[in-house]
Amino acid sequence: MSGDCDFGLIGLAVMGENLALNVESRGYKVAVFNRTTEKVDNLINGRAKGKNFVGTHSIEEFVKSVKRPRKLMLLVQAGPAVDAIIDQLIPLCEPGDIIIDGGNTHYADTERRTKKVEDAGLLFCGCGVSGGEEGALLGPSMMPGGSAGAWPEVKEMFQAISAKVGPNNDIPCCEWVGPRGAGHYVKMVHNGIEYGDMQLICEAYQLLREVGGLSNDELYDVFDKWNDGDLASYLIEISRDIFSVKDDQGGDGYLVDKILDVAGAKGTGKWMSQLALDLGVPSTLVTTAVFARGLSAQKEARVRASEKLNGPSEASNAEMRAAAMKMVGDREAFVEAVRQALYASKIVSYAQGFVQLQAASAEHKWDLNYGDCALLWRGGCIIRAVFLDRIKEAFDEDPNLENLLLHPFFENAVENAQEKWRAVVAAASILGIPVPAFSTALCYYDGYRMARLPANMLQAQRDYFGAHTYKRTDMDGTFHSEWIQLRKQPKNA
Amino acid sequence: MSGDCDFGLIGLAVMGENLALNVESRGYKVAVFNRTTEKVDNLINGRAKGKNFVGTHSIEEFVKSVKRPRKLMLLVQAGPAVDAIIDQLIPLCEPGDIIIDGGNTHYADTERRTKKVEDAGLLFCGCGVSGGEEGALLGPSMMPGGSAGAWPEVKEMFQAISAKVGPNNDIPCCEWVGPRGAGHYVKMVHNGIEYGDMQLICEAYQLLREVGGLSNDELYDVFDKWNDGDLASYLIEISRDIFSVKDDQGGDGYLVDKILDVAGAKGTGKWMSQLALDLGVPSTLVTTAVFARGLSAQKEARVRASEKLNGPSEASNAEMRAAAMKMVGDREAFVEAVRQALYASKIVSYAQGFVQLQAASAEHKWDLNYGDCALLWRGGCIIRAVFLDRIKEAFDEDPNLENLLLHPFFENAVENAQEKWRAVVAAASILGIPVPAFSTALCYYDGYRMARLPANMLQAQRDYFGAHTYKRTDMDGTFHSEWIQLRKQPKNA
Repeated sequence: MSGDCDFGLIGLAVMGENLALNVESRGYKVAVFNRTTEKVDNLINGRAKGKNFVGTHSIEEFVKSVKRPRKLMLLVQAGPAVDAIIDQLIPLCEPGDIIIDGGNTHYADTERRTKKVEDAGLLFCGCGVSGGEEGALLGPSMMPGGSAGAWPEVKEMFQAISAKVGPNNDIPCCEWVGPRGAGHYVKMVHNGIEYGDMQLICEAYQLLREVGGLSNDELYDVFDKWNDGDLASYLIEISRDIFSVKDDQGGDGYLVDKILDVAGAKGTGKWMSQLALDLGVPSTLVTTAVFARGLSAQKEARVRASEKLNGPSEASNAEMRAAAMKMVGDREAFVEAVRQALYASKIVSYAQGFVQLQAASAEHKWDLNYGDCALLWRGGCIIRAVFLDRIKEAFDEDPNLENLLLHPFFENAVENAQEKWRAVVAAASILGIPVPAFSTALCYYDGYRMARLPANMLQAQRDYFGAHTYKRTDMDGTFHSEWIQLRKQPKNA
Repeated sequence: MSGDCDFGLIGLAVMGENLALNVESRGYKVAVFNRTTEKVDNLINGRAKGKNFVGTHSIEEFVKSVKRPRKLMLLVQAGPAVDAIIDQLIPLCEPGDIIIDGGNTHYADTERRTKKVEDAGLLFCGCGVSGGEEGALLGPSMMPGGSAGAWPEVKEMFQAISAKVGPNNDIPCCEWVGPRGAGHYVKMVHNGIEYGDMQLICEAYQLLREVGGLSNDELYDVFDKWNDGDLASYLIEISRDIFSVKDDQGGDGYLVDKILDVAGAKGTGKWMSQLALDLGVPSTLVTTAVFARGLSAQKEARVRASEKLNGPSEASNAEMRAAAMKMVGDREAFVEAVRQALYASKIVSYAQGFVQLQAASAEHKWDLNYGDCALLWRGGCIIRAVFLDRIKEAFDEDPNLENLLLHPFFENAVENAQEKWRAVVAAASILGIPVPAFSTALCYYDGYRMARLPANMLQAQRDYFGAHTYKRTDMDGTFHSEWIQLRKQPKNA
């Protein structure tokens, strides 16, 4: 027996409520369920009043109220709760029904659940959803993956509710990503890139404030201007806005100056870093951003350390400081130099993210379309930016582009920015301002374009102490040398 | 029934053979077993000929040949093989017998196996062993942990076979580390620090070669000199040696120049990085070193990139290059500046390693003694260095020292080195030489000593787009602001 609802949603926290309202607003009838059933009644008698909703009080009633093939979406906390609900849904569903997980799930769980749900004769979809509360209501970025048969069934609805971009605002930020956990992996990389973007903005902010001496009003104007150029993006826009907000607790001055510098994290950046380590691909931006949050959280330790550890002496290295300041230029030139450092670092960050996607796609046989990934992030989500159009174009031109840095647009962009980028990193090093993300991006750029890295020494060491063997540049094969016999006899031996 | 052997060893690869010979050489009778029993016969009829060994051809025979309480050590590949052998040993052992895993095992496996073996009425010891083949034979660094009751039984033998340090060469590099997986965790951190040391040496090598223009003969002399000072260590010593070795395949020139710059890795550095991410502690040196190996492995991609991506233009930024070169000084001063950068970065690397040990010890209730850890690494192992005496002294003075950088010795060392360290990182950035480990160490130092990081902006962003809330510097509690209502109305709204 089935009802007449087009869609069912389990989990009525803010994201779930907003997504349900979004679906209904596009002409669909929506069934909702929540373990704490007061939330169902509150929605039905509140924001959903007079709308095309069916509130249900048991999971059986919920499933029965949706028409076949059912589209049943979970928006609950990632983890065991998802497994528990799937276990309840499987016996109630009928062949062809689709269970959709819209949470921030680890891709490996989605790989596992796809198999489990398919083995039960149903379809599974792990769908990344980004855009926060507002995006859920008005149009999120959606990254669905899982059972291929699910896509034709959910495509129209998902593309209807998603964010739209393009000159006519009609290109949906929702495309099928790939099999099994591919959608959740792409969402995780989105979040990891978001970590990088936020850290880069923080470093620019600190430099402009500490070295440039800019006030919040001036920072507002700088970010407002940046938002008209290459950096135009949601995160630059909200950073600009933040600089304008006065203390809302009755104090003097700006709210941003009253906020404790201890960053929280919810785990997706960490996952991306750990998986990059497993894949052996150097996603240094996201990892640096995660570690920077970790260091920020050691607030009390930092305060103690700040009282003991001195930075660079102003007296003894006045000449070096003067040279550093000359490299970055006067105030206006300095602001522009920081912008270029931010832009070049951001390009490296996205290049790394796509390299990780390529490595993961190869490992898991997902056959990802990278232009589509850029399109999905173009609107609705936290990293939305004009910049992603350039990335989409690059992968449309060459779907096998091995690194964004090799595409002429980004190659030129980084080359044009590199002189000031280098100057900013050098000056920050001399002046004692930590810029871990700017630095690691520059080191990646310089390492990546280096045909010859010093790892020959490292391989020699490993062969010396552990007989790990090495390869040669001029002969095939694997070699081991008797270093102790071959070395020059030490003078004290 | 039990025999008269004092010790049993399973797994006769080079490490196992050498360790067995080491034990026998201290006056113990040793039983050996290997799945491929030819290895047993080869040892007995070869290197063990005429020595106090019993070769066995079945695991039953092996167990029976050792006197109670048995000390049975596994030196086999970490992973399922260890579980398989433990499962075979348990029913053959008797109460009080001790199963010892001397492999490079993930600490979580050792936590699990300790419980399993103790539940079977036996004792378990997870023992990190470092020093390579030579160390195993002549005296390794040993890091035992596990069932507390195992220590009094194995102490005398383990301390007898381990490396010795101290003025009279009588302090063993072997102490009980702590319960369950503590020994393997400390070994993993040892390996992670080794990754950092090796990467730092590579960066120094590249700078001296590319910027300083030093020949291998000159590099030999530099490293020989460095090995007499603060940096004196096994890894500096073997690097020196490596610079003296001529091509052993008949070619002209030096062997190090013929080795392919593609670094391998066996996983412990990756584990340490992933666990640092789980703990939320910024162990940036090991992670940077792991990622640098990953980038080195992309050799073909780097060669392609090197043909497209230009470094800093010599023409357009001649002035900046000149300023950078002035910062690091003439050739002799440059060599000394690189040495100081290496020394300061190395201190940061060890500081991070001990912070991670502290965090892990707190999480797992291991109650580690950090001075002992430094002592264990003082001799026998790959990171052995005079420097570790200073670390032991620091923790002996203050067992709760929260960060090595706060101890006067290291505080002064870094402060004295920081001017040149900064100059080296700045110059490398300007000149286009990647120094990811020098840079990340400097960023950590500058971030750690900063009472106020820019994470207030990050928290504002998170609250703006995701209502993640934030704390304030001036009031208790958790806050959320309505940023969109509070912001200055954008001009184009």
